[in-house]
Amino acid sequence: VIVEIVAVGTELLLGQIVNSNVAFIGERLARDGFDVHHQVTVGDNLDRLAETIRTAIGRSGAVVLTGGIGPTQDDLTREALCLVAGVGMARDRAHAEAIRDRITRLRGSVSENTLRMADYPETATPLPNSNGVALGVAMEIEGVHVYAVPGVPGEMSAMVDEEVLPRLREASGEPAVVRSRVIRTWGLGESRVAEILDDLYASANPTVAFLITDSEVKVRITAKAESVAAADAMIDELDAVVASRLAGVVFGRDDETIESIIVTRLQDLGWRIATVEEVTLGTVGSRIAEAAAGTCVYAGTLTVPSGAAVNEGRAAELLGVVDGFLEADVVLAIGGVDRQVTPDDSTRSVGVAVRTPAGTTTDTVALYGGDDRVRRFAAVGALHALRRALA
Amino acid sequence: VIVEIVAVGTELLLGQIVNSNVAFIGERLARDGFDVHHQVTVGDNLDRLAETIRTAIGRSGAVVLTGGIGPTQDDLTREALCLVAGVGMARDRAHAEAIRDRITRLRGSVSENTLRMADYPETATPLPNSNGVALGVAMEIEGVHVYAVPGVPGEMSAMVDEEVLPRLREASGEPAVVRSRVIRTWGLGESRVAEILDDLYASANPTVAFLITDSEVKVRITAKAESVAAADAMIDELDAVVASRLAGVVFGRDDETIESIIVTRLQDLGWRIATVEEVTLGTVGSRIAEAAAGTCVYAGTLTVPSGAAVNEGRAAELLGVVDGFLEADVVLAIGGVDRQVTPDDSTRSVGVAVRTPAGTTTDTVALYGGDDRVRRFAAVGALHALRRALA
Repeated sequence: VIVEIVAVGTELLLGQIVNSNVAFIGERLARDGFDVHHQVTVGDNLDRLAETIRTAIGRSGAVVLTGGIGPTQDDLTREALCLVAGVGMARDRAHAEAIRDRITRLRGSVSENTLRMADYPETATPLPNSNGVALGVAMEIEGVHVYAVPGVPGEMSAMVDEEVLPRLREASGEPAVVRSRVIRTWGLGESRVAEILDDLYASANPTVAFLITDSEVKVRITAKAESVAAADAMIDELDAVVASRLAGVVFGRDDETIESIIVTRLQDLGWRIATVEEVTLGTVGSRIAEAAAGTCVYAGTLTVPSGAAVNEGRAAELLGVVDGFLEADVVLAIGGVDRQVTPDDSTRSVGVAVRTPAGTTTDTVALYGGDDRVRRFAAVGALHALRRALA
Repeated sequence: VIVEIVAVGTELLLGQIVNSNVAFIGERLARDGFDVHHQVTVGDNLDRLAETIRTAIGRSGAVVLTGGIGPTQDDLTREALCLVAGVGMARDRAHAEAIRDRITRLRGSVSENTLRMADYPETATPLPNSNGVALGVAMEIEGVHVYAVPGVPGEMSAMVDEEVLPRLREASGEPAVVRSRVIRTWGLGESRVAEILDDLYASANPTVAFLITDSEVKVRITAKAESVAAADAMIDELDAVVASRLAGVVFGRDDETIESIIVTRLQDLGWRIATVEEVTLGTVGSRIAEAAAGTCVYAGTLTVPSGAAVNEGRAAELLGVVDGFLEADVVLAIGGVDRQVTPDDSTRSVGVAVRTPAGTTTDTVALYGGDDRVRRFAAVGALHALRRALA
């Protein structure tokens, strides 16, 4: 099925916000095997919105609209759908009363416009909004499946995952369940991982895809099946193959970030950690502190201006500077950038040192690119050096 | 003139990257007074790309395409323009030789595909690329002005500013020069600033617009005139009005960030600064450290886990913890979150303390929202408290 994505909102045309919604929806549709040929963004104008919906219906098998279902006069997606389908508007009375009660309690009164969030084209199925108030829409117009979801990202993403994708898969005769698992690796480049897993790309179900964030290469396995258990069993099988081929570089799955893995490990060991940072300006400590919220494992971070020494020497030097000051069992130090400027870009190396009750390790991370990139990649490299030191 | 923006690239449809290019182009067009009714994204497919260009030409006065002019077989924007215009392809021989020399020097050889970056539809004017290799395109098809720029953000933005907008303004009979100035304010909400400047919105040239980033309200003045001097004079006049009405909250203009202003002030005073941070996890120190690169004003940052005390008490307590440890003349401490959870969101307050050789000031910043938002807004609030303490 070819799906068209329509984003609604004058603020998008004016460039006041970057349209991350269409990227989210596009990624989800691609994951589930749907093709997208056009994404269109149109402003809060009834005629142009209706025309855009007509064009989409004329050339696609399904249409997902995002935005324009809020409470203001500018929110015209519902009206445009009624216009195109030639139907009237219905209201979910119970939901309207719930909105009235809630808003009145909050602000003392409610405007009639606000109650429009309980409206939907009379031939449509209203879609529940698990993160907000406005109802979504699922309807058929001239045999084409049309869905409208909010423009607020958190409401949009939940409604796409919970309501739109399952309906779209069912409508298109796809298996009811699509499950994904991300296998997170660090230490091999994308092209090397691609080589090692080359033959697995031929697999149509489950599929294998790559995602890359900073220096982390993620392998995503997606399976379609009739049940969650069947899909998970298919994923488990391929996961075992990937994990055995990439032994030593797989460090987690799905939401297991490198920070969360480190925090869990420190909790198990009963150790507290401090970081001392030069190049990374405290970003490693702040990532650990966020992951450690509610635990006692984070002891603090010291960021210092650059010193004279480079690499491992400087990192080892920094290990001592918090002694007697921050109470930590483990100290991670990042410091000492060595710049080697090459004709076309610059490569640099950053020293990383880790001291635990079991001993001290030092390491050098080689990086290239601008300051921002070096900072980001040095942070990831240091976190992985720490993970290995705690293993 | 109504302008249509067309983004080209299958990676955009797949959601692999977020389309920030159309936001940039939309923002620039809005600034210069052009209306945008449609943004369309289409994949690397010749027929659909040509069809999308035809549709855009049929309903708009000008079209800006971004993407699809690189060196690979997938880059089809030039071919699609030839197809729609019914013309052949030309090659800038000198540019092709320059590409050949450059790439051969870098990689030892050059592929014929790479030389396509010197091609353009034969009725078009090739546009120079100040940040890259591929030529852009300016041409007229059926009386509609069509421009093609790269998809690489740095190349796209430079070519839009340097080539496309001046041509578009000239083609549409707009004055040749558009100049903008951003007046940066902090301390008043958007709606209050809007009230104070209400009558200025009626001005058609210069125009007044708002931009909001975190808690900073920026007032942008844009003037169109026949010369830079004339445009700047118009801006100066309105700037004086805005600055006098918003006296006390204007802190900078254009690229003067709050960090850069603080660093300049510290340099003037000959003082070094350290920060001690609880809530903000070192982000204030890292902003100052980045702005202070190449200077001696940054002495370091200590991030500590949350203590028991709240607000100003805790912030004042933190002022002392780096004494005898980080050598600083000025210490900024941020700490002590007080949470007051209300039924629908939570408001919190964060303590900020600043110690300079001239004395100590403490302050409380009231905030609402999630952890991330509180951290970001507390950082901005602390930077402004610091600025005032240094004034």
